[in-house]
Amino acid sequence: MQVSDLSQTHRIGPTGKSSLLETRLLRLLIKKIEPLPVRLILGSGATASPTNVEPQYIVWIQDLRTLADIFLDPEVGFGDAWSDGRVRLIRGELVAFLETAYETMQRVWNNPGWYRRLLSSRQESREANTLEGSLRNIHSHYDLGNDFYKLWLDEQLVYTCAYFPEPKVTLEAAQRAKMDHVCRKLRLRPGETVVEAGCGWGAMALHMARHYGVRVKAFNISREQIHYARERARREKLTDLVQFIEDDYRNASGIFDVFLSVGMLEHVGRDNYNHLGRIIERLIGSHGRGLLHFIGRREQGEFSRWIRKRIFPGAYAPSLREALEVLEPFGYFVRDIEDLRAHYARTLEHWLERFDQSARKVAFMYNEEFERAWRLYLAGSIAGFRAGSLQLFQIVFSGFRSEHIPCTRDDLYTAKHKWKTVMS
Amino acid sequence: MQVSDLSQTHRIGPTGKSSLLETRLLRLLIKKIEPLPVRLILGSGATASPTNVEPQYIVWIQDLRTLADIFLDPEVGFGDAWSDGRVRLIRGELVAFLETAYETMQRVWNNPGWYRRLLSSRQESREANTLEGSLRNIHSHYDLGNDFYKLWLDEQLVYTCAYFPEPKVTLEAAQRAKMDHVCRKLRLRPGETVVEAGCGWGAMALHMARHYGVRVKAFNISREQIHYARERARREKLTDLVQFIEDDYRNASGIFDVFLSVGMLEHVGRDNYNHLGRIIERLIGSHGRGLLHFIGRREQGEFSRWIRKRIFPGAYAPSLREALEVLEPFGYFVRDIEDLRAHYARTLEHWLERFDQSARKVAFMYNEEFERAWRLYLAGSIAGFRAGSLQLFQIVFSGFRSEHIPCTRDDLYTAKHKWKTVMS
Repeated sequence: MQVSDLSQTHRIGPTGKSSLLETRLLRLLIKKIEPLPVRLILGSGATASPTNVEPQYIVWIQDLRTLADIFLDPEVGFGDAWSDGRVRLIRGELVAFLETAYETMQRVWNNPGWYRRLLSSRQESREANTLEGSLRNIHSHYDLGNDFYKLWLDEQLVYTCAYFPEPKVTLEAAQRAKMDHVCRKLRLRPGETVVEAGCGWGAMALHMARHYGVRVKAFNISREQIHYARERARREKLTDLVQFIEDDYRNASGIFDVFLSVGMLEHVGRDNYNHLGRIIERLIGSHGRGLLHFIGRREQGEFSRWIRKRIFPGAYAPSLREALEVLEPFGYFVRDIEDLRAHYARTLEHWLERFDQSARKVAFMYNEEFERAWRLYLAGSIAGFRAGSLQLFQIVFSGFRSEHIPCTRDDLYTAKHKWKTVMS
Repeated sequence: MQVSDLSQTHRIGPTGKSSLLETRLLRLLIKKIEPLPVRLILGSGATASPTNVEPQYIVWIQDLRTLADIFLDPEVGFGDAWSDGRVRLIRGELVAFLETAYETMQRVWNNPGWYRRLLSSRQESREANTLEGSLRNIHSHYDLGNDFYKLWLDEQLVYTCAYFPEPKVTLEAAQRAKMDHVCRKLRLRPGETVVEAGCGWGAMALHMARHYGVRVKAFNISREQIHYARERARREKLTDLVQFIEDDYRNASGIFDVFLSVGMLEHVGRDNYNHLGRIIERLIGSHGRGLLHFIGRREQGEFSRWIRKRIFPGAYAPSLREALEVLEPFGYFVRDIEDLRAHYARTLEHWLERFDQSARKVAFMYNEEFERAWRLYLAGSIAGFRAGSLQLFQIVFSGFRSEHIPCTRDDLYTAKHKWKTVMS
C-alpha cells in the first residue's frame, strides 16, 4: 500500500461543510460498489467506507456533481472525472485498484439500470460502424498522430497483443514473435496471396512479405497509418510484394489464399459479423484459410462505455460464441483457437511503462486531460485482461476445400521454426 | 473403380417388368440427389442416371417399396434398406460412395421437407436425454456386449477419436497418444482430483491415475462398461486412485480440480447444455479446469437420423457455437480449441478394417442385418469426417480463479513430454 504522489501535490483537505445529501450519496455509492475495499473522500470533507472490509484504496472526489456523475453512470462518470482531475486515487496504485474493481464489481457492470441502458443504446447508434461511421470512429483514434504512438509502442508500431515466448523477452521481440506465430499458424508459403483487413502501420504485412514471401493487399481507412506504411514499404523495397490500400476492407475485391485480420474485429461492430463472413467468403471462398486475432470476452457483454466514448468509438469485444457468427454461417472449419489473455496484459504493461515515461511529452503535445484519459485507458486495459473481463483470441479457420492446415500443431512448436525472428 | 463382390454373389438381374411409376420415381430420385454420380438400377430392371455426370457408382434397389422409402426419407430409407439387403452398391466402394454423397448432396441434407422434419421431431421426443431416456439410449448401444467391441477396438477398448502424432502409428499407440494429449492439455499434477463424465471402459481414468498420479471419480451408466472397468482397475491395482461409479454424471457430487468428458457431449442432448454447464460449475467451481472432447460440426445441423435410429439414439453433434453454451453462461475461459477431424477419420479407418476382418463373427454373434448396419455406420462416419460434415473438437477451459493453464502451449510439444507413452 502506498500513498501516491498526488496526495502530496494536490490539496485534498476539506473545502467546505459537507451536506446531508453528500453524506447520503457517498454512502449509497459505497453500497453500490461493495465489496470494493475503498474509502471515498469528498472535497467538502465528507467520507465513507465499506463496513465489512478494510479499505486498501482512497479515492478523492472533488464535489457533489462529480459524485452524482459517478453514481448515475459509474464508468463514464469515473472516467471523465478522472481525466479532468475531479477524481483522484490518493492511496493505492491505479492498475491494482482497477483490477480489484473489475473483480469485485461484476454486479455493477452486469446489471445496468434503465438509465445506463438508455445512455448505452443512444451511444451505440451514434457509433454505428457503417462505412461512414467507421471512417469517423477510426479517424478519431488512429489518426491522433504517428508521433504520439511512437512514444509508447514498439519500434515497428504494432498496436495489437504481442506474444511472449518467455515473460522476459522485450516488447520488440514479443511483437516479432507474435507476427511469426500468426504466419506459422496460417502456414504461409512463398507466392501465396494474403488480404489483410485493418493493417495498422503495416508491420504485419511487411513481415509476411519479407519472411514468408507472400503477396499482400492490406486495407486500412486510417490515412496516417497507410501513409506511414507505404513509406516504410518503399524504404524497405517491398512495394512489389505489399500493396497498402486506403479503403474499407468491405470494398476489397479479388481472390486470395489467405484472409488475415489482427485487431480489427473489435471495430467491425456486433451487427456486422455476418457481413464480415460474407466478405471473407467472397475473398477466399472454400479454398482459402484465415486467422482472426481480436479482443474478446468469456461471456457476452458491453465494452466499457467510457472507452467507447473517449478512446475507441464503436468498439465491441465479442464472446467466442458471438465471434463465431463470422464463420459458422459460411461453413468454415474452426481449426485452432488460442487464448492469449496473459500476453495482452504483459503487452499493455510495456505500453503503460513507456507511456508513463513520456507522460509529460503527451501532456505537452495534447493536454493533461488527454494524458490522464489515455493513462486510465491503458491501466484499465491491463486490469481488464488480468481480471479476466477481457480475453485475446486467435482463431484459425479454413474453407471446405483447403488442405493447408496440417493434422497436428507440432509444426508451430518445432525447434526449426521456433521464434526465428525473435533472436534475429 | 471396382465392381464389388456383391455383384457376383447376388443376382441383380431384372426380376419382372418395370412400371411407369417405377421409372418416374427413379428419375425423380436422381434429380433429387444430383449431382451424385450414381446409376440406380431397380430390381425390375428399370434404371436411371444423371444427365450431366458420368456415374461412378451403381446402386441396386430391390423394389418399388424400397425406392419409395429412400425417396421420402433418404437417410433412414437408405440405411434400413442397406442393412436388410434391399439396397446394394454393385459398383464402387462404400466409404468413397458415402463421402461423395456427403460432399455433393449438402442440399438434400440441409433442406429437409415437411415430412422429414415431422419424422425428425417425433424421433427427437422419443430419444430425449432425461435421466431415464439416457439410460435407455446408452444401454442400447454400449451394452451390446464387450466381446463385440473387442473385435474391432484397440486393446484398451477406447471408443473415441485417437490422436496420430504420425499417420503410420498403430491404433493402440494413437489411443495412448490421445490420452496423453488430453492429460497434458489439462496439465494434470499428482494428487489432483478428476471427475470424468462418461468413462467408457475406463482406459482414460486408469491412464490418468497410472501416468499422472491423479485421483479419478469416473461416471458411466453403461453397466457392461463399468463392470469391465472395475475389473481392470482391480487387476491393475489402481482401485485406491480410481473409482468407477455406475451412475449418471448429473448425480455426481463433490469438489474436483478437473472436469473431463471424452465422447460424452454427443449424448447430452442439445437442450441440456446449460444444465451440463451448471453441473460442471457445481463440481469444479471457479478454481477448476476442464476439457470437453466431442464430435461437432462446422455449422448447426442434425445428426444423421438413421444413425440416431439404429446406432446412437439421442445423439447430437453440436456446432462450436452451440457447444459453447455449456461454458459461456458460467464465465469459463476458453483457453484452447483444437480440431482433430482428420484423426477421427483415421481412427475409424482402423476400426472398419478390424471390423471387416471380423464381419463373419459379428454376423454370427448377432445377424447379417446387424453386421451390415454397423458396417454402414462405420463407413458413413469415415465419410462424414473426410467430407467435413463432422469434426472433432477438444476444448480446454478454466475457471476464473484457476491458474494452471500456462501462457503458451509450448509444454504440449516439448521433447521431454513428447508422446512418452506412444513409445513405451
